[in-house]
Amino acid sequence: MAETQPNETTEKEIHALHLALDEGHLGAISRIINGIPGSEAAMFLESLPGDKRYQVWELIDESCRGEVLVSLHDEVRDSLIEHLDTDELVDATRDLDLDDMADIIVDLPEEVSNELMLSMDKTSRDMLHQVLSYPEDSAGGLMNPDVLRVRTDVNVDVVLRYLRFRENIPKPIGDLFAVGRKGHYKGRVPLETLLACDPKTPIRDIVDEDAPAIMDTTHASEVAQDFEHNDWISAPVINEKNQLIGRITIDDVVDVIREEAERSVMRMAGLDEEGDMFAPIISASKRRAVWLGVNLLTVLLAAFAIGFFEDTIKKVAALAVLMPIVASMGGIAGSQTLTLMIRGMATGQVGSGNIRNLLNREVMIGVINSFVWAIILSIVIVAWYKDVEMGIVIALALVVNLIAGALAGVLVPVFLRRLSIDPAIAGGVVLTTVTDIVGYVSFLGFGTWILLG
Amino acid sequence: MAETQPNETTEKEIHALHLALDEGHLGAISRIINGIPGSEAAMFLESLPGDKRYQVWELIDESCRGEVLVSLHDEVRDSLIEHLDTDELVDATRDLDLDDMADIIVDLPEEVSNELMLSMDKTSRDMLHQVLSYPEDSAGGLMNPDVLRVRTDVNVDVVLRYLRFRENIPKPIGDLFAVGRKGHYKGRVPLETLLACDPKTPIRDIVDEDAPAIMDTTHASEVAQDFEHNDWISAPVINEKNQLIGRITIDDVVDVIREEAERSVMRMAGLDEEGDMFAPIISASKRRAVWLGVNLLTVLLAAFAIGFFEDTIKKVAALAVLMPIVASMGGIAGSQTLTLMIRGMATGQVGSGNIRNLLNREVMIGVINSFVWAIILSIVIVAWYKDVEMGIVIALALVVNLIAGALAGVLVPVFLRRLSIDPAIAGGVVLTTVTDIVGYVSFLGFGTWILLG
Repeated sequence: MAETQPNETTEKEIHALHLALDEGHLGAISRIINGIPGSEAAMFLESLPGDKRYQVWELIDESCRGEVLVSLHDEVRDSLIEHLDTDELVDATRDLDLDDMADIIVDLPEEVSNELMLSMDKTSRDMLHQVLSYPEDSAGGLMNPDVLRVRTDVNVDVVLRYLRFRENIPKPIGDLFAVGRKGHYKGRVPLETLLACDPKTPIRDIVDEDAPAIMDTTHASEVAQDFEHNDWISAPVINEKNQLIGRITIDDVVDVIREEAERSVMRMAGLDEEGDMFAPIISASKRRAVWLGVNLLTVLLAAFAIGFFEDTIKKVAALAVLMPIVASMGGIAGSQTLTLMIRGMATGQVGSGNIRNLLNREVMIGVINSFVWAIILSIVIVAWYKDVEMGIVIALALVVNLIAGALAGVLVPVFLRRLSIDPAIAGGVVLTTVTDIVGYVSFLGFGTWILLG
Repeated sequence: MAETQPNETTEKEIHALHLALDEGHLGAISRIINGIPGSEAAMFLESLPGDKRYQVWELIDESCRGEVLVSLHDEVRDSLIEHLDTDELVDATRDLDLDDMADIIVDLPEEVSNELMLSMDKTSRDMLHQVLSYPEDSAGGLMNPDVLRVRTDVNVDVVLRYLRFRENIPKPIGDLFAVGRKGHYKGRVPLETLLACDPKTPIRDIVDEDAPAIMDTTHASEVAQDFEHNDWISAPVINEKNQLIGRITIDDVVDVIREEAERSVMRMAGLDEEGDMFAPIISASKRRAVWLGVNLLTVLLAAFAIGFFEDTIKKVAALAVLMPIVASMGGIAGSQTLTLMIRGMATGQVGSGNIRNLLNREVMIGVINSFVWAIILSIVIVAWYKDVEMGIVIALALVVNLIAGALAGVLVPVFLRRLSIDPAIAGGVVLTTVTDIVGYVSFLGFGTWILLG
């Protein structure tokens, strides 16, 4: 597929595609969709309901279909695959690069993957099996096993001639990697050095033997961080025998970063698996129902806590009117602390070395803000209800809950991580449960004590 | 700085640094911190409180300091800069690449930036001014004006000889860009083609004239999306006269993607500006106070709505115990819809072409889930309070609020965007205000009608 035209944004193209689709201009759709990159075409497909997806799919050139399939979110891809027959799928995926093939082949029906395997030469098949033997989110799962290897006993001009001989150099070429006997990784040959030095220079003289490689079992997030910190375009992947088994390139890493960013936002809303905006309504409802169920349990806990104060509420109904304020403020403040902690833990910046410092800091900030807002809020409440004691109640409860929020914001993620639970998923729920219960109990408790005691 | 050792994660290194710091092993700190990439050293600095930061800064080799400064979050960098004298800053930043220099020079004190400007040759100074004339988050602001230009009337071997002559090729080399008279952009010369073809081939034969360039005014997010969709390593930047003025490389884009991802999560908690975990407590409190104040206003609105039903609560205190359940469930469900919408709008997949479809879908999901949970919840409530009418009240209110959540989840971000407000920032607050008010009013309203009517 051709590259984008300058200044034509994804949104404009997708909008144009929607218009063409509404008006049934199949020719226009075909022209536009085969002129944009595969990943943009995939995004357009994802924005359509089921039947229209299949209609548009038929308009995509066969040569582009593989790239589109690879770029689709898992869920959308699965539903599209169910709709296509074996021949269509084989034709679409036959010419994919090995790392893309590895991504997609597990999602294909058995007849299709068998045919694809048969159509490959043995070397490719073996390399594919190697990638598939790794978890998807590991270096081994991300890598392309098809990697250019150079020997250290040749000169630069031999390498350059070899590249010309190959005719088809993988994009991006990235750095080259030197190997010894038995394919042992010997170091990185930076492309810029290769091009800048005298062609008679032996590779041995320009290879960087200290350049680190990525272990095949390394998790994808760590791979991404390594790329970012080192500004790599490509990096070698080695196994425990120190053999060079593949390479990862920056475009794969960018996908990882983007997916992780998206996933973290989705998780906070309990949407981890929802890759398809137009998945069948029943399955979407089922998935969201789980999250709603979890939250229902936590809010029932809070309601149960409020239940102890039912008598108090009967006597001073105003307490019921005002109690959401304290609970809500505690949740907001606590979420700020929690968000900072989660970010810090994800980047590795927050650890046993500075937790205590952070805790003290966050509690101090909680105290300051609680005093400020307690004063402001109590003035508002006294003006509203003409009741000074009520103002004191809300002030005290707010101070308690904002400090509780700070403490929970720091300690909940630490605690969850110790239980090997991802704090990015569960942290928010646990935190708001804490701030809700503490908020309601402290407000109603102080209310009982001060107004009725 | 050397590259990371294989398998030593950022966390381990930062942990080792913290240990060394606690034990006062300055030698160990110096050894580790000068052996890791600048961006990792920056992360370590960010994880330290103020005084320790300055202590560690002194241990960083002068040659590495520039990279560290560039990698720091704005806030941390500002506070560190205040602490350093002019000479230190000039020595640290003098040898930075032009695009990094452009990022940092606006944050430096005037004496420092003046000295840096004076120490540059005129060409560099002009190029720097050009970059600075653009907004930071635009293509012009991201680019490196120092870009390799080739003419189309020479052969490949001339270009290769020129690269060797230069000795110092910018990392990453990326593709080369062809220019005509007056520096007009003529097309992209893919590196892989340059290396694979016969050296006697004229550049004219291998240049891709259709390869698009990025307009200097393009927003950084769009630049990032273009890189991702096209799997670019580098891309040319042109001005409105179609002159090649610079290039952007993937490593800069990766930073943009990472920052955007981080910012979106931070914004949802009202932490947009908080780049420094250890900023002075007072300024951190002030910033968070603003968000707390906004939320206080919205929850006061909800309390005000509850206030209309104070009599009802006096008579049936149980309503106060149970009302947070309906409000909370509506907020959770609505947030799911909102999150999907925000993601879809950010990627350009959600637009006038499919909003109606999405709305119908989300409302259907809301209806299904509301019926399911209304039934389950009313059973729980009837078991708890032995009151069938209460069960009916909560069931009705839940259905109303979950549907309201779905509607708000779709319409609020659309509405905000029409007002040019970023739905990622304000969407959550507006949505939960809607679901809180609808939740409380419907529950208490139905309660008044059914239990007291």
